[in-house]
Amino acid sequence: MPIPQPNLYPSFNVVRLSHVEFIVKDLAASRAFYVDLLGLQVTDEDASTIYLRALEERGHHCVVLRKGEKAEVAALSLKVYGEEDLDKAKAFFDAKGLPNGWVERPYQGRTLRAVDVFGTPLEFYFKMDRLAPIHQQYKLYHGVKPLRIDHFNCFTPDVDASVAFYNEMGFRVTEYTEDDESKRLWAAWMHRKGGVHDMAFTNGLGPRLHHTAFWVPTPLNIIDLLDLMSTTGYLANIERGPGRHGISNAFFLYILDPDGHRIEIYCSDYQTVDPDLEPIKWDLKDPQRQTLWGAPAPRSWFEHGSTFGGTPVNEPILKAQPIIAP
Amino acid sequence: MPIPQPNLYPSFNVVRLSHVEFIVKDLAASRAFYVDLLGLQVTDEDASTIYLRALEERGHHCVVLRKGEKAEVAALSLKVYGEEDLDKAKAFFDAKGLPNGWVERPYQGRTLRAVDVFGTPLEFYFKMDRLAPIHQQYKLYHGVKPLRIDHFNCFTPDVDASVAFYNEMGFRVTEYTEDDESKRLWAAWMHRKGGVHDMAFTNGLGPRLHHTAFWVPTPLNIIDLLDLMSTTGYLANIERGPGRHGISNAFFLYILDPDGHRIEIYCSDYQTVDPDLEPIKWDLKDPQRQTLWGAPAPRSWFEHGSTFGGTPVNEPILKAQPIIAP
Amino acid sequence: MPIPQPNLYPSFNVVRLSHVEFIVKDLAASRAFYVDLLGLQVTDEDASTIYLRALEERGHHCVVLRKGEKAEVAALSLKVYGEEDLDKAKAFFDAKGLPNGWVERPYQGRTLRAVDVFGTPLEFYFKMDRLAPIHQQYKLYHGVKPLRIDHFNCFTPDVDASVAFYNEMGFRVTEYTEDDESKRLWAAWMHRKGGVHDMAFTNGLGPRLHHTAFWVPTPLNIIDLLDLMSTTGYLANIERGPGRHGISNAFFLYILDPDGHRIEIYCSDYQTVDPDLEPIKWDLKDPQRQTLWGAPAPRSWFEHGSTFGGTPVNEPILKAQPIIAP
Amino acid sequence: MPIPQPNLYPSFNVVRLSHVEFIVKDLAASRAFYVDLLGLQVTDEDASTIYLRALEERGHHCVVLRKGEKAEVAALSLKVYGEEDLDKAKAFFDAKGLPNGWVERPYQGRTLRAVDVFGTPLEFYFKMDRLAPIHQQYKLYHGVKPLRIDHFNCFTPDVDASVAFYNEMGFRVTEYTEDDESKRLWAAWMHRKGGVHDMAFTNGLGPRLHHTAFWVPTPLNIIDLLDLMSTTGYLANIERGPGRHGISNAFFLYILDPDGHRIEIYCSDYQTVDPDLEPIKWDLKDPQRQTLWGAPAPRSWFEHGSTFGGTPVNEPILKAQPIIAP
Repeated sequence: MPIPQPNLYPSFNVVRLSHVEFIVKDLAASRAFYVDLLGLQVTDEDASTIYLRALEERGHHCVVLRKGEKAEVAALSLKVYGEEDLDKAKAFFDAKGLPNGWVERPYQGRTLRAVDVFGTPLEFYFKMDRLAPIHQQYKLYHGVKPLRIDHFNCFTPDVDASVAFYNEMGFRVTEYTEDDESKRLWAAWMHRKGGVHDMAFTNGLGPRLHHTAFWVPTPLNIIDLLDLMSTTGYLANIERGPGRHGISNAFFLYILDPDGHRIEIYCSDYQTVDPDLEPIKWDLKDPQRQTLWGAPAPRSWFEHGSTFGGTPVNEPILKAQPIIAP
Repeated sequence: MPIPQPNLYPSFNVVRLSHVEFIVKDLAASRAFYVDLLGLQVTDEDASTIYLRALEERGHHCVVLRKGEKAEVAALSLKVYGEEDLDKAKAFFDAKGLPNGWVERPYQGRTLRAVDVFGTPLEFYFKMDRLAPIHQQYKLYHGVKPLRIDHFNCFTPDVDASVAFYNEMGFRVTEYTEDDESKRLWAAWMHRKGGVHDMAFTNGLGPRLHHTAFWVPTPLNIIDLLDLMSTTGYLANIERGPGRHGISNAFFLYILDPDGHRIEIYCSDYQTVDPDLEPIKWDLKDPQRQTLWGAPAPRSWFEHGSTFGGTPVNEPILKAQPIIAP
Repeated sequence: MPIPQPNLYPSFNVVRLSHVEFIVKDLAASRAFYVDLLGLQVTDEDASTIYLRALEERGHHCVVLRKGEKAEVAALSLKVYGEEDLDKAKAFFDAKGLPNGWVERPYQGRTLRAVDVFGTPLEFYFKMDRLAPIHQQYKLYHGVKPLRIDHFNCFTPDVDASVAFYNEMGFRVTEYTEDDESKRLWAAWMHRKGGVHDMAFTNGLGPRLHHTAFWVPTPLNIIDLLDLMSTTGYLANIERGPGRHGISNAFFLYILDPDGHRIEIYCSDYQTVDPDLEPIKWDLKDPQRQTLWGAPAPRSWFEHGSTFGGTPVNEPILKAQPIIAP
Repeated sequence: MPIPQPNLYPSFNVVRLSHVEFIVKDLAASRAFYVDLLGLQVTDEDASTIYLRALEERGHHCVVLRKGEKAEVAALSLKVYGEEDLDKAKAFFDAKGLPNGWVERPYQGRTLRAVDVFGTPLEFYFKMDRLAPIHQQYKLYHGVKPLRIDHFNCFTPDVDASVAFYNEMGFRVTEYTEDDESKRLWAAWMHRKGGVHDMAFTNGLGPRLHHTAFWVPTPLNIIDLLDLMSTTGYLANIERGPGRHGISNAFFLYILDPDGHRIEIYCSDYQTVDPDLEPIKWDLKDPQRQTLWGAPAPRSWFEHGSTFGGTPVNEPILKAQPIIAP
């Protein structure tokens, strides 16, 4: 079945994923992880909240850490092109009967909070405080030297339904896997900004956030981080990798923050700006789609994810987990 | 003076730079340079023409080498979003009274040939034959392992005029330098596809093509190429680098093909998809804008460029060459 | 128990490990693996034998591939300092009552074949044909770009006995693990040439060759090889890695040749020329000694090895395999 | 003329170069350079002296910074194999009538101070305080992440005489250049520890120290340092590079400390432990011997060096400077 692709001219224009708000139980521990270990830069903080940006970003933040009772995700945020796209977005969600409304967010202009077809909390804004460039202040670089947030990956109970929904928001599929019997999608990678993905969906108990990824320039950044984590008390936070994904061709590492929020460090994907870029289909039985080099992922990687605050989860449509056992 | 930026909704939608056609005097020598040395892949060839693509590209070609009597550039080509953008482009050039017309090009759909305000030959197309992905056929990787064409850089007699013209086509300035006295632009970097540039302009005898750049993932690709060139008879083709530009933050190497067409090998720039990304202004007297590490460029780099076939050149408006002498 | 170290002035002077002779069942398949895939250079070949060197070596060969009926190892070869060291070596083996004698070997001067305390076949020579340097002929570099043979690693039934024996030949322990209860050595890394090892021993059914290692300059060479193997039909030959060993601090990859001879690709160890360098002791229960980053090795890695032609194997003294299960 | 090589069994056994003592005028400025910028580790310090080691070293120091009125070099230190080698060294210098005597040095056992044939102050020791390994304490790594001291390079008024003298101490030539007319040596690289050099000599006003080199694993360490220096106020301290030497094949960068002592950051040379390794001769007219990629060195690199305290300098025998002009 050919993968559906968006209308070339979606009803509103999403530029890219922008930021995630993690609810964390121990703010100091999270600060140590994201700032001291990974190398994200603090742009503001108080007793309950820390704002972070990566080194080539000029928007105020790509991560918000907020102290709370339960480790979960408050929202995934997306930047739209112009202010009029916010109104178009509101009309889009209204037309679908999906809850949405204007919210106030520090450092941002007018912001729309909505939920997708499975209840995933999304926030849309067009303007955020801009900060001076720091990408040439090389004394700030440490840890994994993260350059920018790259993508979100979510479990969803119905990948076809999620893809259809994000298609309407203009997201395009770059790679995907399909269940041979049911012809239903198993997983799909979708982008707005010209890389392999801003958002990916995998069949599973959802909606839950599987991981948030940061982009680094070379595999050596990842090797440096592994050396650092394994000798500074973070050995147990290393979950999977290093390796190369078949899908996306990315060199990857998966790690868990102190609350279990999964972070991917990511490099080496490819440019996807052509509107006629053909999605690449992978066979669900091909283990190289997961790891080109053949090493299996641990069970936790297939099962664990972060819930979204206040959003119930649903069993997935496709039951058989195609886990490639170690 | 604030740098002018484009209307957010240009009259037609250019996706990215696409390809260049070089007229070369010795096709075998050019093939040895681009294919055997650099590692571009041949997608078609006959006695007079060779088509090449880089390793992550799926369009049929990013370089056309055509045998001719005089080393020059036949055209710079750009991909537009949809077929209707071609008609809008025609209307755009017609409205400006600039020569343009439909041409036939192998492997491409409907194609518009036009000239910019200084006579630079541009070709616009929306559809090119798509080839199967080869980015995971690692046995094909050799030379500098070029992943994709990245940008063109041109000499222009009037940078302000060129920037204003490409602004109208939706190109946005990411970085620039300005002459302090006249407040005229000395050079500007402009993008469509979300990197630092698809097209850059520098004050000089023009229009001429200063260089065509290819993107590689790490500085080690460039070091490998230097080792290879310097031990296989291409020592004299190394013109400048390796180094890091202040402007764009890119790690670079400049080399000359057998006809003197300049090629840049390029990595490490940054993502620019935000429509509100503020251009970075550099002081024309700051030598770090050219090389962050301080090493000067050779004189040839400031003076030499490739002419466009049939296009006369004009003296630049700004006369004083701000060459930073070795 | 302090690790025993050699008399500072051993009875004969071994410079370094030199080469290995693999008996292989399909010479063409082995050639494809070592030459086309790994990038070793052929220095001579005929219908039954291929001689190979790595890119910075000037001796005639570091690997000999010889066609045979059974996949095994014919001998491990060591280079001694001067011709007089051969006579001293003969006296050493004679004094111990260990079989030894002069043999003829192509491309080598006078050569002594002997066996160590467990029957491992060793060959000592002082002079081998020297070839012109090729380390700056960069067009020859491909595959993993191997620069030199680095070390042998052997299973032995009694690590204490092997260490004592090689101590007498001047080998020094750089790192080791010890069984806490019996206070017997579990494994030891020993060097002559100034790196972490020329020869290592691990408790196990032996003597058998666990692996032969080649040195490359950076982890990116190893990542390139993984990409190449996994897309050219060699996926099943990838056994373990990439990762960093706690012991030796090396970045590693283990692969199997077509006959199951294990090859390690290795970088990032350290210099050990100081005669007073203190050996580093690792706790046998510390999983980071095997992989600093925590990922376990597969079972095959603990069990599989190559036998030496005509040499029977013995059960090890220490029975409990401290396998760190996946 | 064949290059003279040492007697295989020198009268005393030098293991390797060990450390340098720099006299510096502003201790705080030197600390900022060597510790904060380069990443060497402080092992002891007081108001007048700082001791430093690199990250894989276990000896107490590889650099001593001592506050003084005049920027110069107090001594070059070498480690010998055993205590008896000190007595043999004393006999060697006594026999040549060269001034020498026992001195007290903190953290060292018995130490002999002597001068070479041109007055270069050398200190020999066999035992230095050993420190716990830190090479796996990855949180300490910053700056250029220096792993070990690699070599000294000196101007000498007569390279033939210096080579002959160090030959007698067991140093072997690995690469050299010769003046075609006089058949005198122009420069020579000599080693003890198994790399391309512990000590090199170049024709020039001497004796003076041209530079002290530190070994790093990959060119990316050097690129990181360049980015850091050029954005933290050390732009003017970058003298030459990055590039690859033809001689030694090393990837290099030359920088100047606050007193003008020249430091090389160095990687990618090769192993030289074979006693029959043939020296490589380079043509003095071949510019690739200096920079394989063709870029010239600046004039300062040919002329500037650090004097040794109390040691007068002499004009070189060979007058014509073969500077390859930019």
